[in-house]
Amino acid sequence: MTVRYSVPRGTSDILPGQIAIWQEIDKQARAILSRFNYREIRTPIFEETGLFKRSLGQTSDIVNKQLLELASNKEEGYSLRPEGTAPIVRAYLENSLDKQESLSKLFYIGPMFRGERPQKGRLRQFNQIGVEVIGLNADSLYIDCEVIILSMSLLKAFGVQGSKLLINTLGSENDKVKLAGYLRDKLKGRAPELCEDCQNRFERNVFRILDCKERSCINIVAGINFDNSYLSEESRIRFESIKDILQKNKIEFIEAPRLVRGLDYYTETVFEITNPNLGSQDAVGAGGRYNNLPEVIGGESKKDIRGIGFSLGIERIILAIDEELKKVEEKLDIFLAVLGKGEIVEQGFAILNSLRRAGFSADMGYQESSLKSQMRFANKCNARLVVMIGEDEVRKKAVLLKDMVKSEQEEILFSEDNLDVLINKARERLKVLC
Amino acid sequence: MTVRYSVPRGTSDILPGQIAIWQEIDKQARAILSRFNYREIRTPIFEETGLFKRSLGQTSDIVNKQLLELASNKEEGYSLRPEGTAPIVRAYLENSLDKQESLSKLFYIGPMFRGERPQKGRLRQFNQIGVEVIGLNADSLYIDCEVIILSMSLLKAFGVQGSKLLINTLGSENDKVKLAGYLRDKLKGRAPELCEDCQNRFERNVFRILDCKERSCINIVAGINFDNSYLSEESRIRFESIKDILQKNKIEFIEAPRLVRGLDYYTETVFEITNPNLGSQDAVGAGGRYNNLPEVIGGESKKDIRGIGFSLGIERIILAIDEELKKVEEKLDIFLAVLGKGEIVEQGFAILNSLRRAGFSADMGYQESSLKSQMRFANKCNARLVVMIGEDEVRKKAVLLKDMVKSEQEEILFSEDNLDVLINKARERLKVLC
Repeated sequence: MTVRYSVPRGTSDILPGQIAIWQEIDKQARAILSRFNYREIRTPIFEETGLFKRSLGQTSDIVNKQLLELASNKEEGYSLRPEGTAPIVRAYLENSLDKQESLSKLFYIGPMFRGERPQKGRLRQFNQIGVEVIGLNADSLYIDCEVIILSMSLLKAFGVQGSKLLINTLGSENDKVKLAGYLRDKLKGRAPELCEDCQNRFERNVFRILDCKERSCINIVAGINFDNSYLSEESRIRFESIKDILQKNKIEFIEAPRLVRGLDYYTETVFEITNPNLGSQDAVGAGGRYNNLPEVIGGESKKDIRGIGFSLGIERIILAIDEELKKVEEKLDIFLAVLGKGEIVEQGFAILNSLRRAGFSADMGYQESSLKSQMRFANKCNARLVVMIGEDEVRKKAVLLKDMVKSEQEEILFSEDNLDVLINKARERLKVLC
Repeated sequence: MTVRYSVPRGTSDILPGQIAIWQEIDKQARAILSRFNYREIRTPIFEETGLFKRSLGQTSDIVNKQLLELASNKEEGYSLRPEGTAPIVRAYLENSLDKQESLSKLFYIGPMFRGERPQKGRLRQFNQIGVEVIGLNADSLYIDCEVIILSMSLLKAFGVQGSKLLINTLGSENDKVKLAGYLRDKLKGRAPELCEDCQNRFERNVFRILDCKERSCINIVAGINFDNSYLSEESRIRFESIKDILQKNKIEFIEAPRLVRGLDYYTETVFEITNPNLGSQDAVGAGGRYNNLPEVIGGESKKDIRGIGFSLGIERIILAIDEELKKVEEKLDIFLAVLGKGEIVEQGFAILNSLRRAGFSADMGYQESSLKSQMRFANKCNARLVVMIGEDEVRKKAVLLKDMVKSEQEEILFSEDNLDVLINKARERLKVLC
């Protein structure tokens, strides 16, 4: 009996035919992040489960329902990372980056994991590009602006069009407590009409009710008046200044007083970027300040360290990009068509190696077959040049060089072991083509 | 009480100060793999545990002791991938790549996982670059040669020097059975002297005894005469031809009759690359043919599909590289020194954004501080140019442009909102420096 092995539910293979857009996003991201002077950091795929419980909040859905834990005999073990912020703050503190510099501008690109019930756009393994700005000097409101501008610049570079930037402020830790009280007060009378999940959220994490997708909850939330009365003067002025700077730098945004983000660690500025191509799960990325997270993770002595960051979902980005932009043509400099066997193949293989050593991308078919079938292969690889070698050529110490763009063909003679003539001819022809 | 969260045992953070060599290896690998016309494939971080049990062999150490499993209620669940070959053959078959092309040349770069007892050079999460050539047409002995040449070309491109290539053949599936019998026959008399692990291996997987690092086992194995008598004529001729082609293409190698690789799936050609900088765990990479693996994973109907591949350990590569090569200088095009606050910072931030939009890598300090301290920051970033803006400059609509290499300084005036003069001057100066 044959067992069929399948890709795990909620994950997917990225095949060679689909990889071009992933490689392009990686390349563009690195170029833009370098312009903004962010440096890459890589943390492990799994972390202590306690790190996520402590930082994301015991009441968040991610911690309650969605951690993918490693099997372990111990009481509390490791979990695959569901997000990048907590691991990077952990790495920042454990490696004492705060002792080395007063401002660390970090980025990451990689997979994250959540044990979600699979549904459209919800994956168990998904990929994110994100940044974290951490340090004693990370408090400037210009950093909020830089981070927001960077997120929009990345999406623009990827070719994502029509995105909307939503921003809000949660105020200080104190303001957040006031806002929670205000929300409970407004929702109290209608609590029985909330969905079951939201009835649980009412005491434990009232902010999550604002993100609920149930029709009844959406209607109740829509009736609440948000008036910023919970904000301290300092947080209010800070938010006004940020909006002012964004405007002066021509960044369009929408104020979204209902935007709160479900994670415990956010304070002050929060933002979300939506895209109309994504349907109901329309967020392509989100972020915010987490000024208390360094203390939560590192303890009292780290309480002056500030932080802000965002992450973009790569699968979401790809969904939002125009189909046209996803097509990236493969290219091969030289295909080697070998007609014959034995010594002819041996000679062909030696030429192939010399061409690769000279820096060309080059390939051959490795299977005895007709010229017609080899030319078909060359076309499939989108080869610019074809080098042909058969019995005649081996005898004459020559090859035929065919220019697939110009449809020209020439015979090139070379002396024993010296392919310089061929290499130079090929360089010349490829230079013209580039 | 503060809990300290640490990086999981056997894993590590790669910090911004260490990242350059990782990025460089990634870049070089992609360049060389593209020359050889290999295309990237990405499979999930975890797979069905059964896939690894079936393909690596129930008796292998990896499956017996080293799988990191995900927590699950079901009898058999998922495990973090310990290697790349089985997942890629699974993805190849599940996505019917064999129906689309007769030869697939695939590569991967990413983390692998083993639940090892941590020791020098043994990690729970480690990174590999690997290739797999799979298909109905993957049988050519030139493909064995290409794959071996590619592995050596990659190491050369990374700057790994002094590596040794060891090659051997296990022969066909039948030959392997004969070889196992021969080994048992030779070891039988000395079985009591073998270490405990090897006494278990004697029946279950006798090949693993050849890899044992225990002094007593090494001595016993050294006394066995390997004479290739187990090889079929076909496999013998194949191996002779491969050695001949490698020689003709100037690839140095050492014949290593004791090299067998511990995984069930290998047949025919196997190879290993060692490096003297690595100490006792001296393999920087290894690979071989696995002609039966597609059938093992995909069933009877896939029995004509052939495969060969290798993987290189990135942590090992980095250990083997000269310290000098690991130093990659950071560079920033422009640092913006802002002297003042309020409107001056606001102007500075707008200039910063314009410079980034124009394609420069640029940054500012985001903290009110002295010119001296900002110049120190500019030097730390290795900035080529510094743009200075203070009260005078804002009033005059000007900036000072300082060339850090030439130690020259000039004032640049610009009209409202038009920074073209500055952008052109900066481009000119950076072009000269590049």
